[in-house]
Amino acid sequence: MAATDDFSPVVILVLLRLHGGCLEQSEEPRLIDLTWTMEERMNMYPTHAEYRFTIVYRGELAPGYPESYLESNNLFMSEHTGTHLDAPAHFVPGAWRLDEIPLGHLTGPGVVVDVRDKIGNNSDYAITQQDLQDWERQYGRIPDDSILLLRTGWGEWFWEQGPQAFLGTDTEDVNLVHFPGLHPEGAQWLVDNRNAPLVHRILLPNNVLILENVAHLDKMPPTGSTVYAMPIKIGQGSGAPVRVFAIVDGRTSTAGLSTPNWAAMLSTLLILQLAVM
Amino acid sequence: MAATDDFSPVVILVLLRLHGGCLEQSEEPRLIDLTWTMEERMNMYPTHAEYRFTIVYRGELAPGYPESYLESNNLFMSEHTGTHLDAPAHFVPGAWRLDEIPLGHLTGPGVVVDVRDKIGNNSDYAITQQDLQDWERQYGRIPDDSILLLRTGWGEWFWEQGPQAFLGTDTEDVNLVHFPGLHPEGAQWLVDNRNAPLVHRILLPNNVLILENVAHLDKMPPTGSTVYAMPIKIGQGSGAPVRVFAIVDGRTSTAGLSTPNWAAMLSTLLILQLAVM
Repeated sequence: MAATDDFSPVVILVLLRLHGGCLEQSEEPRLIDLTWTMEERMNMYPTHAEYRFTIVYRGELAPGYPESYLESNNLFMSEHTGTHLDAPAHFVPGAWRLDEIPLGHLTGPGVVVDVRDKIGNNSDYAITQQDLQDWERQYGRIPDDSILLLRTGWGEWFWEQGPQAFLGTDTEDVNLVHFPGLHPEGAQWLVDNRNAPLVHRILLPNNVLILENVAHLDKMPPTGSTVYAMPIKIGQGSGAPVRVFAIVDGRTSTAGLSTPNWAAMLSTLLILQLAVM
Repeated sequence: MAATDDFSPVVILVLLRLHGGCLEQSEEPRLIDLTWTMEERMNMYPTHAEYRFTIVYRGELAPGYPESYLESNNLFMSEHTGTHLDAPAHFVPGAWRLDEIPLGHLTGPGVVVDVRDKIGNNSDYAITQQDLQDWERQYGRIPDDSILLLRTGWGEWFWEQGPQAFLGTDTEDVNLVHFPGLHPEGAQWLVDNRNAPLVHRILLPNNVLILENVAHLDKMPPTGSTVYAMPIKIGQGSGAPVRVFAIVDGRTSTAGLSTPNWAAMLSTLLILQLAVM
């Protein structure tokens, strides 16, 4: 069959959704999107390129024929744009690049540590050992292979207010960048008590992945979800934009594939690794 | 806390994977990556821009200090690159753009229709009503809200052999593009018997999404999986690169969230929509 339209061939996957999906209709389980929409002028770390969205075509190819309507756009971006993943190779020579990360490392039980009340509007706040221990006292030990989300409030309050509010500066001076992070004392506690190396340059050599700018944590329960953080598969990438989502079903399991006993999970060795910064 | 490194702040998600993930170790359920790696010179439909991967930095920021190592890259691409999704707005004015697609429409039970034996090496083969009915006779009625994957063999045989093998041409002449597709008679059967409008310009107005260049279907069972096709969330996008993956667990369910009775599913109204071409 000869191609007569502008899309590429062979394996085509069709999502059957003429009527409303049952997921939206049911109360539970439910899907939660944890991803910011990519758009020009979104907050970028000063050293990275600005995201560019270019309209290639938007209109009728044959004027007067609505069936000839076409939209197509081009994108230019840093790999480290919006809600995105850092691959170990971002900071470690010879470590996994984006396309080398096993799929199973991109999903796990979601753990949301809410530190908003402690941070308030202090952009220099550093999350402490006490903050992490407070969470564990309330919800139990953080499960192995978790996806740990630090809910600072910064995203929900400031993401849409631009870089001055979100990053502390709209200039390219990285010395002016301020945001809540992890205190060295909290980090040390994790190292001493949870066998956790810390901060990017120690995390990444151990193939611990880091996601940044996760959205809509206000919709997330502290536990009982499975989180998926799925990057586009950039060959040789040091990172990539991701679609992050959670399935909230009251279970705390690995990849939504099993329903382990919560108490049993609490007894598993915790290897907790955290990076804020 | 002041920023001292080149990544952006606030909510950081850490995947805890110091030791091997349990998903890879278990036989079932298992994760399958259905995504081609993005790289320069990959197959592109002739009218779309070539994908560009540009190294911004790869080396030690401070020579002699391995801890100063940094990799960072920029990307330029059409939205319709590699394994990607078409949003309804690609062909329909006022229809959903990429960022407007509800998350629940991006996942569903995976159905793999294997037509390789019938296609052979005929790049003009068109999938028939009979091919679809043959599948249903063997496996049962295609479930509602499925993600339907047409396994033509083209991807597994030709993707890595370049555009001449995969598309039929390495020129920009779209008239030379050939690949297997859906026959109008097969399409008509779907319309008449499965209430299915057909081909892109009819599918997309009904908010039926289309994925192209899905990879590694050789690893997929005909049924018993849940497929997730997760695009990066491009504001106003007409489409986007996706990470497509499946969880194979013997269940055929919506979003892996329930385990409906197979017979009950077969009795549900099938609204089958197919587009190849």
